[in-house]
Amino acid sequence: MNKISNATIRRLSIYLRQLEEIIDEKIETVSSAEIAKMSAIKDTQVRKDLSFFGSFGVRGRGYSAKELAEKLKIILGLNKEWKAVLIGAGSLGKALSGYKGFAKHNINFIAVLDSDPAKIGAHIGDKVIERYSAAALKECCEKSGAQIAVIAVPASEAKKVCEEVIQAGFKGIVNFAPVRLHLPEEIALYSVDLAISFEHITFKLNRNSDE
Amino acid sequence: MNKISNATIRRLSIYLRQLEEIIDEKIETVSSAEIAKMSAIKDTQVRKDLSFFGSFGVRGRGYSAKELAEKLKIILGLNKEWKAVLIGAGSLGKALSGYKGFAKHNINFIAVLDSDPAKIGAHIGDKVIERYSAAALKECCEKSGAQIAVIAVPASEAKKVCEEVIQAGFKGIVNFAPVRLHLPEEIALYSVDLAISFEHITFKLNRNSDE
Repeated sequence: MNKISNATIRRLSIYLRQLEEIIDEKIETVSSAEIAKMSAIKDTQVRKDLSFFGSFGVRGRGYSAKELAEKLKIILGLNKEWKAVLIGAGSLGKALSGYKGFAKHNINFIAVLDSDPAKIGAHIGDKVIERYSAAALKECCEKSGAQIAVIAVPASEAKKVCEEVIQAGFKGIVNFAPVRLHLPEEIALYSVDLAISFEHITFKLNRNSDE
Repeated sequence: MNKISNATIRRLSIYLRQLEEIIDEKIETVSSAEIAKMSAIKDTQVRKDLSFFGSFGVRGRGYSAKELAEKLKIILGLNKEWKAVLIGAGSLGKALSGYKGFAKHNINFIAVLDSDPAKIGAHIGDKVIERYSAAALKECCEKSGAQIAVIAVPASEAKKVCEEVIQAGFKGIVNFAPVRLHLPEEIALYSVDLAISFEHITFKLNRNSDE
């Protein structure tokens, strides 16, 4: 596990997205050079990344787009169903619970927890908001088999929630709170920075205005 | 502009984040090898990326973390104020309008537009929701000088909104709708996939369960 960097996983995600795009366009085979060009990643890097997980392509004929996409899904764990708990039923929690993209990733929110008494019992999509507590977390993890906790609470609460999530036995955390979490190595953590997307835009607008 | 790939911008963003982390920890100087290690990106790649934008480091002594962070901010356009319009005042729009991370990026939402008559006039944070129309977009762009449009509308509306945004004269689009947009090359587009973060987690949990 330690050999695979976050940067590699990110590239595999990008390859998969590009493959899904060309599958939509009914393109059947693709070379590593074409994947490289679409992904804006070097050809040598693409071949290295893919060869690390086995030999997929047929020499001189490239990859079957569908087969390679299926293999990447298996590598990325997207062929299984994943049970997740959503913590925080504020506007971000609502947006996440209604986000269509999760179904494609086989992410199934089994519960939505919030510590605000005024929210308990209200609906968020087809889920009823339940009271957040260490015991509720444990139940989601031990009884319902949830492995992933999605933290969408205010920054001020995120560290405490994170500790309780680990205590409860969760193995993976997706953190949307704008706070840095330092976790034991065996816990898979991914912190989402919603602002980072803007850097692509400000970088390009900035360069355009310089030209 | 065409020479800089999205992957490079992504890496610059990652370096900046790592630098901000060590600046928080009061570390003053850093080598490219240390940046590489923190970022899980190859040393040679880090040096190449940074040298592309000029010679920052002092031979044998590494980089001043603060100076390098400042230079990356300038490259990424984060030293200027950017005016943006938020389109869509649903739960995702609400989450984005309240997201603390944008201030750090000097992103200033000057208006929030929605096409739902029931929402017009309501508050979202300190903004009043205004009626979405092509004319309203044009006014934001031409009169108020907004350059960036943030699309947080349902997938079914995203393509139409995107066309009207370009018509109005916006140069940059951050798209949160789960739909693929094909734009003229001179428009800077970044599509955010909120589900992609889960692939890091499912990948790692998957590998752990195999071991």
